[in-house]
Amino acid sequence: MAKDMTLLWGTGSPPCWRVMIALEEKNLQGYNQKLLSFEKMEHKSQQVLDINPRGQLPTFKHGDNVINESYAACFYLESQFKSQGTKLIPDGPAEQALMYQRMFEGLTFYEKLNAVIYYEWYVPEGERHESALKRNKEALVTELKLWEGYLQKVFEIILILIRRLSPERYPKLGEYHNLLKERPSVKASWPPHWLENPKGQDTLKDI
Amino acid sequence: MAKDMTLLWGTGSPPCWRVMIALEEKNLQGYNQKLLSFEKMEHKSQQVLDINPRGQLPTFKHGDNVINESYAACFYLESQFKSQGTKLIPDGPAEQALMYQRMFEGLTFYEKLNAVIYYEWYVPEGERHESALKRNKEALVTELKLWEGYLQKVFEIILILIRRLSPERYPKLGEYHNLLKERPSVKASWPPHWLENPKGQDTLKDI
Repeated sequence: MAKDMTLLWGTGSPPCWRVMIALEEKNLQGYNQKLLSFEKMEHKSQQVLDINPRGQLPTFKHGDNVINESYAACFYLESQFKSQGTKLIPDGPAEQALMYQRMFEGLTFYEKLNAVIYYEWYVPEGERHESALKRNKEALVTELKLWEGYLQKVFEIILILIRRLSPERYPKLGEYHNLLKERPSVKASWPPHWLENPKGQDTLKDI
Repeated sequence: MAKDMTLLWGTGSPPCWRVMIALEEKNLQGYNQKLLSFEKMEHKSQQVLDINPRGQLPTFKHGDNVINESYAACFYLESQFKSQGTKLIPDGPAEQALMYQRMFEGLTFYEKLNAVIYYEWYVPEGERHESALKRNKEALVTELKLWEGYLQKVFEIILILIRRLSPERYPKLGEYHNLLKERPSVKASWPPHWLENPKGQDTLKDI
C-alpha cells in the first residue's frame, strides 16, 4: 500500500513511534522500514545521513519528499491522506485549539522528561551536578502534575513514561495509558525491545 | 476586526513575534493586546496565569479557545481563517513537506540559540562550565551552517539572530533577513525595544 514510503527508526524512541502510530492510524501499512540501533550508532550511518543530515531517527521519505521531523511527518500525512483512516485533526474550533495546544505543550513535556532520563547521556561527567538533576526532576514533577490535570490527548510519551513510573502516583495518566495501549495502531507499533524488558531503567523511580 | 482575540506578549520574544506575524499575515489586526515585561516578571502575573498556567508569553485567546503555544496558535489561525490574508500552508505535497520539515527543525535552531544566549540565565552560577558553553556554541555554529545551506522559510528567529550576528559570516541568512524585514507583517510587529537598542547584547559576537 505505502510502497513509496520509507521509514528508518529506532525502538522506543517517542518521535519514531509517533510517526509509526500516525502511519497506522492513516491506514498506511506496508511501507519500507528498517529498525536501526542507537547503541550501535546506526543513526549516524551514511544510509541515514543521505536522507537526514542531522543523523537522527526517524528518517522518513514519501516519494521524493523528506520529512524527518516527527511532528512535521504527522502533519504531512494528515494533510496528504485527509480522507483515509483516522481523522487526526478535529473539525470544531474548540477541539482544534485544544489539540494543537496540547500537541505543542507535549514538546515541553518530552524535553523535561529527557532532561531527567538522559541527564548522564547529555551532560559529560565533569559537568554534572546533583543540584541540576534535582531541579530537572522537580521540573518534571511540575510538568507531570499539569498533565495529570489536563489528561486529554493521545500521546506516545505517556506510554514511554508509565512503563517506568508508578501509575499509582499519577492515576489519570495511568488510566489513559491503559486505554492507549489497547489501540490497534499502538499495538501494531509496540517497541520490540519492550517485549524483552517491560519495565525499563529506573531513572524515574523517585518521580 | 479581531476584537474576540487577546494577546499578551513580550517584546523580542520569538514565540510572541511568531504569533503577531501570523495575525498580521491573516489580516487579523485590531485584536486586544498588552505588552508585558519579562524583566518585571509580568509573565508570572495573575493576569497571565489565569489563561496560561505555565506563566509564559505569548498568552493567546480567541473567544473561549486558549492557544498559548505559538506554533499551535499559528496552525489554529491558518485553519480557522484559511481563505483570509496570506495562505500560510502551501498546497503542493513537496512544498508542504518542506515547509513542515523546516518549521519543526526551527525548534531545534531556537533551542540551540537559547542555549548560548541564555546560558547564564538558565544555569545557576555554581553549575556553569566553560566547556559546556563552548559545546553549546559549537552546536549553534553547526546548526547555523545547516540553515545557511537550506535557507528556505520565513523565520522570525533569523530576525532575532542577524541583529546580533555578523551577517558577513552568514551571507545567505543576511540576505534573507533583509528580505524579511521589508515584509509589512514584520514591520507592523517589529519589537519596540529594538528601536531603542538596535544591536542587542553581544552574546553571539564570536559565533
